[in-house]
Amino acid sequence: MTERGMVQLYTGNGKGKTTAAIGLAVRALGAGKKVFIAQFVKGMRYSELNLLEKLDGLELRRYGRDCFIVKSPEQADIDLARQGLTEVSAILKKGAHDLVILDEASIALFYNLFTLDELLAAINGRAPQVEVVVTGRYAPQGLIDAADLVTEMREEKHYYTKGVQARDGIEK
Amino acid sequence: MTERGMVQLYTGNGKGKTTAAIGLAVRALGAGKKVFIAQFVKGMRYSELNLLEKLDGLELRRYGRDCFIVKSPEQADIDLARQGLTEVSAILKKGAHDLVILDEASIALFYNLFTLDELLAAINGRAPQVEVVVTGRYAPQGLIDAADLVTEMREEKHYYTKGVQARDGIEK
Repeated sequence: MTERGMVQLYTGNGKGKTTAAIGLAVRALGAGKKVFIAQFVKGMRYSELNLLEKLDGLELRRYGRDCFIVKSPEQADIDLARQGLTEVSAILKKGAHDLVILDEASIALFYNLFTLDELLAAINGRAPQVEVVVTGRYAPQGLIDAADLVTEMREEKHYYTKGVQARDGIEK
Repeated sequence: MTERGMVQLYTGNGKGKTTAAIGLAVRALGAGKKVFIAQFVKGMRYSELNLLEKLDGLELRRYGRDCFIVKSPEQADIDLARQGLTEVSAILKKGAHDLVILDEASIALFYNLFTLDELLAAINGRAPQVEVVVTGRYAPQGLIDAADLVTEMREEKHYYTKGVQARDGIEK
């Protein structure tokens, strides 16, 4: 019998959400599993892409523009995110990947790029064995309720407040 | 001028501390940096090792026995951790690695395998450009004070409480 895949949520304002998801991807790949990473909102090339793109068993798609959303999303942000959710829904349903990571999907909700109902429909429509990881701050209560595991990454101290800028290979 | 490396601490009782450190390692490697991972306390072969050991630019050492410390540490736990701290101190001082991860070093403190003063001496004796990441629950206040960035991973919900066992490629 196949085990049911869990839904893991990493949220909160602290550093470590996306990196935790990447670490999970590496662990799963190390166990011979297939991994799909969907990066919502951010379309920038983070340093990890250089390595992740070379790994067997990993597929990665980015559904965001090459910049942060500053105030309110543009139509391009919405279109990319919605296209992403459609693609990811199909990936989840097909079940060819053991682990599907929806990086920053919670932020996509925050900006109303798609709705919680649409995200939950995609997650709940998955092949039952698929493990799902969702990241992003501002997770709404409905997403927390739907998850089997929730870790809140709480910022206790951050060097940004000391004026340290985002650094290649560390923050990006 | 070389930037000063920061000290990042990931603590708390939630899932995601070690995986966040691994994700940081992947990001740093993707940027062409050299990474050293010291795993304290746990000497078990987690799935990620299969992949990490193959990556260029990454060195990984384990300083623990092949099981968890259940109640109190044995002499072997102490000897391995102390040997590890000696080796890591030299690595930190040499500065040939851009990122040095002390996985579960906070747990090693919790079990008194070495002291906070000894750990801080190793960290503070580093070549100035080296970025340090420390993980593990129960971080003492002195370690929190010494860190430039602290994220507390708080367990809000965990499927262990539903009877789900640790799974290959997900938890181990």
